[in-house]
Amino acid sequence: MTADAPATTDRSMTDWALKIEYDGAPFVGWQRQARGVSIQQVLEEAASQLCRGAPVASVVAGRTDAGVHAAGQVAQLALPEGWTPPRVRDALNYHMKPHPVVVLQAALAPAGWSARFSAVGRVYRYRILDRRARPALDLGRVWHVARRLDVEAMAAAAALLLGRHDFTSFRASACQAKNPLRTLDRLDVARSEATVTIEAEARSFLHHQVRNIVGTLRLVGDGSWAPAQVAAALAAQDRRAAGPTAPAEGLCLMAVRYADDPFSS
Amino acid sequence: MTADAPATTDRSMTDWALKIEYDGAPFVGWQRQARGVSIQQVLEEAASQLCRGAPVASVVAGRTDAGVHAAGQVAQLALPEGWTPPRVRDALNYHMKPHPVVVLQAALAPAGWSARFSAVGRVYRYRILDRRARPALDLGRVWHVARRLDVEAMAAAAALLLGRHDFTSFRASACQAKNPLRTLDRLDVARSEATVTIEAEARSFLHHQVRNIVGTLRLVGDGSWAPAQVAAALAAQDRRAAGPTAPAEGLCLMAVRYADDPFSS
Repeated sequence: MTADAPATTDRSMTDWALKIEYDGAPFVGWQRQARGVSIQQVLEEAASQLCRGAPVASVVAGRTDAGVHAAGQVAQLALPEGWTPPRVRDALNYHMKPHPVVVLQAALAPAGWSARFSAVGRVYRYRILDRRARPALDLGRVWHVARRLDVEAMAAAAALLLGRHDFTSFRASACQAKNPLRTLDRLDVARSEATVTIEAEARSFLHHQVRNIVGTLRLVGDGSWAPAQVAAALAAQDRRAAGPTAPAEGLCLMAVRYADDPFSS
Repeated sequence: MTADAPATTDRSMTDWALKIEYDGAPFVGWQRQARGVSIQQVLEEAASQLCRGAPVASVVAGRTDAGVHAAGQVAQLALPEGWTPPRVRDALNYHMKPHPVVVLQAALAPAGWSARFSAVGRVYRYRILDRRARPALDLGRVWHVARRLDVEAMAAAAALLLGRHDFTSFRASACQAKNPLRTLDRLDVARSEATVTIEAEARSFLHHQVRNIVGTLRLVGDGSWAPAQVAAALAAQDRRAAGPTAPAEGLCLMAVRYADDPFSS
């Protein structure tokens, strides 16, 4: 059992998988911090209300940064026996009000399942609004880039990042992963009117990896870089060789994939 | 010349067409009111800054209610000669900060064109989030209905409203239109995951017509009404025969159509 797995050794507890949506704007990120409100804190304090006030520890699939949103985050925590899936969902949602965090679905966690370590895929979506006018309707949900981007060039550059690579050039200096090798399974770039959507899928990502890729693709989109320069930046294995980090507000964790999906049954 | 047309009789003025996006949440609606901030006021006060402080009067295609959003509203106003389309857009956007209102495009208005009276089609989109959990990411952009709706039944009922009818059953009691006859050209109901989208298109709409139609279709969606009851409600020509008014926050004016489109050239 890993150090951050929930305390389910007590036989009177049941282990739950939770699919969660949140607006990241008001939070310091998923993880608890010394200052500010975290999504973890909102969830765990709500769960504690279902445990007669006893503290609850959760495990999460993607520890999103401050300002990053989620439409399909997955967390895991243990509750006393006797709850049903709809009641877990509704009770947590009741206690998380009025924070912009909701449980979409609660399901019994399969035996031996970990929200974090059993995940075989994570899907992130990044949205750029590339028009002159600042966002009114999508404010806080997109990165506003005031000039039209070349999506074909961005897609050509994205293709150069697919597969298994040392992504040192695209990881945050604070990244704690021991190994900078990651396999990028998908990196799609598509336009719908003035919105450029970048979807990235991998078993796991390094810290800031998606945002650093997006910040680099933007340089290709605005003509500052040729697509081939992205391959050179990757090969450099040096954070200074790639582009800047795109802002958090455009990023959303869309889905987490499991071989043994608790939510499919 | 109609009473609410912009003052373009002065030959030193140029008449502009503006495509506008806004988040309706903080506003009392398009039109100026005795209390509260209107989108019209934000636009006209910004335009006044381009006219050495002289008052500016605008004409609009759709006088949206309090809380209703727009992705493609069209307004018209006159400015002193000498501005270019990009400078009109950027200057108005500068002066409208930080209100969630932006000009997407400015174009010279064709001779004799009216943002209101030349419009041959208006497209509204209404979004319902039909799931148990309240909205976190789409808060303020959707009507939250906590039970799953039957989209096929809603679409069948919607088909009964297409065409030219007396829509008295679906107009607000405060509606000032002389004639309750309207031709509903399109009323599509579609689902994407937990979002039901209703798109309505007509040359013009009565006051609250879309929201009253949506409030009625929701009764069909949740099984309270059979689709045929919507036809009976229409035939009754009585507001009390139809369903309640759906909330403003789910509604967005998507586009206004013109035979002589100022924005296409």
